[in-house]
Amino acid sequence: MEGRNYIFNVVKGVFRKYGYQCIETPSMENLSTLLGKYGEEGDKLLFRIQNSGEKAALAPEKGLRYDLTVPFARFVVQHQNEISFPFKRYQIQPVWRADRPQKGRYREFYQCDVDVIGSKSLLNELELVQMVDDVFGQMGVRVCIKINNRKILAGLAEVSGQPDKLVDITVAIDKIDKIGLDAVKQELFEKGLDEQAVSVIEPVLTLSGTTAEKLARMRQLLAASEIGLKGLDEVGTLFQLIEEAGIRQSVELDLSLARGLNYYTGAIFEVKALDFAIGSICGGGRYDDLTGIFGLPNMSGVGISFGADRIYDVLSGLDLFPKGVAAAANVLFTNMGEKEIAYSLPVAAKLRATGIACEIYPDATKLKKQFEYADRKGIPYLAIVGDQEMADGVVTLKNLATGEQRPVACDKLAEALK
Amino acid sequence: MEGRNYIFNVVKGVFRKYGYQCIETPSMENLSTLLGKYGEEGDKLLFRIQNSGEKAALAPEKGLRYDLTVPFARFVVQHQNEISFPFKRYQIQPVWRADRPQKGRYREFYQCDVDVIGSKSLLNELELVQMVDDVFGQMGVRVCIKINNRKILAGLAEVSGQPDKLVDITVAIDKIDKIGLDAVKQELFEKGLDEQAVSVIEPVLTLSGTTAEKLARMRQLLAASEIGLKGLDEVGTLFQLIEEAGIRQSVELDLSLARGLNYYTGAIFEVKALDFAIGSICGGGRYDDLTGIFGLPNMSGVGISFGADRIYDVLSGLDLFPKGVAAAANVLFTNMGEKEIAYSLPVAAKLRATGIACEIYPDATKLKKQFEYADRKGIPYLAIVGDQEMADGVVTLKNLATGEQRPVACDKLAEALK
Repeated sequence: MEGRNYIFNVVKGVFRKYGYQCIETPSMENLSTLLGKYGEEGDKLLFRIQNSGEKAALAPEKGLRYDLTVPFARFVVQHQNEISFPFKRYQIQPVWRADRPQKGRYREFYQCDVDVIGSKSLLNELELVQMVDDVFGQMGVRVCIKINNRKILAGLAEVSGQPDKLVDITVAIDKIDKIGLDAVKQELFEKGLDEQAVSVIEPVLTLSGTTAEKLARMRQLLAASEIGLKGLDEVGTLFQLIEEAGIRQSVELDLSLARGLNYYTGAIFEVKALDFAIGSICGGGRYDDLTGIFGLPNMSGVGISFGADRIYDVLSGLDLFPKGVAAAANVLFTNMGEKEIAYSLPVAAKLRATGIACEIYPDATKLKKQFEYADRKGIPYLAIVGDQEMADGVVTLKNLATGEQRPVACDKLAEALK
Repeated sequence: MEGRNYIFNVVKGVFRKYGYQCIETPSMENLSTLLGKYGEEGDKLLFRIQNSGEKAALAPEKGLRYDLTVPFARFVVQHQNEISFPFKRYQIQPVWRADRPQKGRYREFYQCDVDVIGSKSLLNELELVQMVDDVFGQMGVRVCIKINNRKILAGLAEVSGQPDKLVDITVAIDKIDKIGLDAVKQELFEKGLDEQAVSVIEPVLTLSGTTAEKLARMRQLLAASEIGLKGLDEVGTLFQLIEEAGIRQSVELDLSLARGLNYYTGAIFEVKALDFAIGSICGGGRYDDLTGIFGLPNMSGVGISFGADRIYDVLSGLDLFPKGVAAAANVLFTNMGEKEIAYSLPVAAKLRATGIACEIYPDATKLKKQFEYADRKGIPYLAIVGDQEMADGVVTLKNLATGEQRPVACDKLAEALK
């Protein structure tokens, strides 16, 4: 929890600096809100709540939320007259999946989403990139922010002569990191694309060079596709904004980035840690019609989701959690009896008033036991109080890591600990 | 959420200053863990999860947690070999009740619990009082911390000749604030207590005077009850510690305080706001056998729960939320087009680097619309950027409350906003 809270605090701090506001939605949604939104497999993974009470048969069935996106869309539609658009919100809450629990797949886990809805401006895309830059900069994690645009993929489907196969193409390309280029080509053939179509798509997936070079090459290839050119314009503008804003992490146009979710219609993002092997730790994109299904059409938005569990693994693996994040308190006052406690209470109160976390051991037991308690909790200092200390107006401050100890006047203790 | 997060942040900050560590438990517990713990009525109010998947019939039934106490007890028993005792934890999570939702009764609401388990020392009771003092002191809420002890009530049952009626007596006394003394007496008669017994209990419920006077009077009354005298000793020691620790809020020995929950065995607490009429905003007590039901006996603990929803009402009612708690950002940069944005981006980035939250309006729409956006979101300042500002290297900073505006050099903006 301490590590997870560190991640949430960094992320929240960044969201707030950019003017995003916190919402939470109820754990339960009407089942009708959830069903059909996550595919057949998703429907099976919904946790359903048993209705109870007298009017059970009449009440709408309920399910636990499966992600934060659908409840957010429902929320926006329901509160459209109270919300001032563009609406910038973040939401950090658990979601549930009725899956067999196993490593990396949990029944309950946190999602951490940030979206702006009600504006088509690419400044929103930029802001998401800025926030990613800021979050991982603060954490000390080097990342690559990969960007692509669904309209480019749509253009590619068009010029390959298979505009109706966009979803199949997207789903296949999305797997390139996992299964490799040859298997992606195989899947494209299986989905009914011919040699000619695949020969148009293949070189794009392995295109190298600078962003400007990639864009120039793609501009030739997609010259006949209006939507494709629109996608290239959007990417060009976004990269120019990124240049102006001075992003420190590396940002890359990755034309093989697809992302499986079908509701994306513009920019798509994925963030990878450079120094730790793990899947993407953050991802998202623009959607033009998320709220349409709940009766509010033409509400364009863009958002990303931070993968808290994977970020936790990265920070652990690279030993990047700030020291002391797991420590309960800075110092433990020993307990040798009532007189010592009466002496220690005001000293501890003063420390806390300066923001220093401290504990007083509650029982007057053997000192060894009290030492062990501090050690097991990761408390770095002991403040030992006995007859001599009380006579001298000091505590004996012991550094548990080095074993060093020295008397410190009670009114100098805060200073000594800082 | 902004107000609620303010409350959680104050409370968490205090918990951490006293060395309490955060835990969370899963939303679902095995139904067998929950059933029978909250009485018949509670069993009916448990939300049950439908099992799904192939092995549904074999999997244990699950329910959503009803409070944080039972999951905490389960957690302590399950992890007893990894925990270092005394174990100080806090837990802030939603709980669920399958009740008909209405004002003040929700299907889902937050509880905010802090407990220390594995120590009988009264220093733990003191620490809870200190934390209550600290939390409401920070919030600026004047409260009365009411204290009693279950052992005193047990002694009272003994000397009234009805030791087996302790639960009935407790349940009846617990209602005195709501139904008054006469109705409590009536209930005691209905539960089978005779005139003589009630005549012993009645004067205790209305006892006035200083704590020392009340304790002296009770010491006479409970002279024949070992457990009663033990309770008086505990209360006496706790009030002495409270004296030594220098609690600023008022603390009162309230012999009519009972609290309905049956697992309390020692100190009981309740906190009331002095300047706002609402039920108790915090309460708790000591329990000697919470974990016994899960197979770990003799594990004494003490804890309290902060009522976040009621505290929210108190802070709203007394207008004590800090100003700006609801504001999304300090300043909104207007958007008049691409050149202005290129000028504003690095200025905004510098503000954020100094911790000032700011937004750039994403679309180059009419200024009126941008003003309205700031106004509706409660953003106090506008940073207007047009041709003149860009030529002069300034922004026009407009205070939306007063209407005043003046040019501020870009590198002085952070200072002007602080």
